[in-house]
Amino acid sequence: MAEFDLIERYFAPLAATSAAARGLADDTAFLASPPPGLVVTADACVEGVHFLKDDPPAAIAQKALRVNLSDLIAKGARPFAYLLTCAWPRTTDEAFVAAFASGLAEDQATYDIGLIGGDTTSTDGPLLVSVTALGEAAKAPPARAGAKPGDALWVSGDIGAAGLGLAVRLGELSLGPEADEELTRRYRWPEPPMALRRTIAEYATASIDVSDGLLADARHVAQASGVTLEMNLEATPLAPSVLQWVRAQADESAAVRRLAAMGDDYQTLFTAPEGCGDVLRREAQAAGVRLTRIGRVTLLQVTQVTALWRGVAISVDRFGFEHPAANVEALR
Amino acid sequence: MAEFDLIERYFAPLAATSAAARGLADDTAFLASPPPGLVVTADACVEGVHFLKDDPPAAIAQKALRVNLSDLIAKGARPFAYLLTCAWPRTTDEAFVAAFASGLAEDQATYDIGLIGGDTTSTDGPLLVSVTALGEAAKAPPARAGAKPGDALWVSGDIGAAGLGLAVRLGELSLGPEADEELTRRYRWPEPPMALRRTIAEYATASIDVSDGLLADARHVAQASGVTLEMNLEATPLAPSVLQWVRAQADESAAVRRLAAMGDDYQTLFTAPEGCGDVLRREAQAAGVRLTRIGRVTLLQVTQVTALWRGVAISVDRFGFEHPAANVEALR
Repeated sequence: MAEFDLIERYFAPLAATSAAARGLADDTAFLASPPPGLVVTADACVEGVHFLKDDPPAAIAQKALRVNLSDLIAKGARPFAYLLTCAWPRTTDEAFVAAFASGLAEDQATYDIGLIGGDTTSTDGPLLVSVTALGEAAKAPPARAGAKPGDALWVSGDIGAAGLGLAVRLGELSLGPEADEELTRRYRWPEPPMALRRTIAEYATASIDVSDGLLADARHVAQASGVTLEMNLEATPLAPSVLQWVRAQADESAAVRRLAAMGDDYQTLFTAPEGCGDVLRREAQAAGVRLTRIGRVTLLQVTQVTALWRGVAISVDRFGFEHPAANVEALR
Repeated sequence: MAEFDLIERYFAPLAATSAAARGLADDTAFLASPPPGLVVTADACVEGVHFLKDDPPAAIAQKALRVNLSDLIAKGARPFAYLLTCAWPRTTDEAFVAAFASGLAEDQATYDIGLIGGDTTSTDGPLLVSVTALGEAAKAPPARAGAKPGDALWVSGDIGAAGLGLAVRLGELSLGPEADEELTRRYRWPEPPMALRRTIAEYATASIDVSDGLLADARHVAQASGVTLEMNLEATPLAPSVLQWVRAQADESAAVRRLAAMGDDYQTLFTAPEGCGDVLRREAQAAGVRLTRIGRVTLLQVTQVTALWRGVAISVDRFGFEHPAANVEALR
């Protein structure tokens, strides 16, 4: 398949909804009136690093898109457009590209965004999908810096399901057919907390998406803000099948520490003034998004994450992951 | 080297000039007041496709950036920022990354642009550099569509030097040490016609950057505009060493046809009303950029490129390239 045919058949239709795309027929996208607060992010997914060779093509496309939406949502920004660059292995067949594009079409409808540009090339290496996503923010988005003593620490959704899902995919773990399927789904299809966007924009003093690991990303916030984050690890929100796995481990605290260092969660971790607890809980409930208070900001200047388990400080020797082998090694 | 160290040591300094970058410490870039006419483009360069393994790291970085600037300039847009996603082979050492970043620093100064975001990952495959570049346009940029009968066809710079440079690098061609060095330089370092930006924005009715091949890109314009483009191939602007190569070929017309199908030129091909010839020549001279009238738009509806050699129609069986082996095959 020639590059032009690929673009015309599978990608131009994805650009049909956005005038800025100029039908992908014009080398560049043109936004005559971009939103006043423009938020831009770029994240790439590589086969063997961020997804596995046997993941469905639609899932690969959707994960590449959603990890970028996750960055925008963590900044309280509304995604509205993206550019897509694919490096296809020479063995890629048309059915793969067709399924890949259909995954994007589905997510474009779900998230109300449009393709506005990009590039496609071949490679002698593994599939690489690079996305640049554009979002709109009503005001300056919460940075990593901005957490202050007196803030509480919150996390959306639950933690560790994607990490265990990867272990299932790699044949390192099995919790039975149903749980395995659920965890695989969680690995393949991140679900950023889209419905919390306005809440994050309004109340977060600092914010980050959880991609490297709950502990690692908390450390990013602690370092950028110059504060100590005290995390109550026993409060880490867990999906039922993940909780089941934790309960089966000899050391529950160690098991949760592992989950909190796995990453790939694509939830939002943010701080907000302690007094906002009620309104945050109310808005999260209205949005249908799980939201958990998992700690607080304590000291200024001493930059660290202190992990507690039922009120007792525990040591953490692993904060984040380096996909995917190291991740699974932690499970053994 | 960990991803965070890489970013902090080599890429954060590249983002120091741009407030939108937030020091690369914040997952997303934030443009509080993006320009009203925002032009966005994304192009990737892959080792073995767009550059060669033994190209200098600084040149690889600069080519990846400049091929994107080429797209913006062809639309008359002023580049001001870019996002960079690199997939590093696992064997990449720190010296390579340092040289790569120093190439970017140099080009940022040359082109007055700043890094505002991106991603870095590892890969089991070849090096891939994906850039998204942002530019500012005072009005809607010239599209591929827009060429009308009565327009002349213009091209900036010269054609074929990069294609011959690739052949030199692959050991398929030698024109002596000096010419070989010059052609290699032209292959590694595209020089988009930055100084023609305002002229293109003001006068072009249709425009495209020459990346696939002069003939292939002319065909893109003809197809999008629904017109016939008549190209006088004997007028194709050539660098002295390229002209020397053409003169040494048995069939000069065939030789120029080959050059016009090589691509990698990163010049701008545009149409403008025939009456603008004088002002275009004057502005190009003032800008110090070579600008050549190489044809005209003739018919409406019949969508094609007609190649002439000294007034006589010649057949073209090859319009563009598919890097790089096919490119060189055409030289044999």
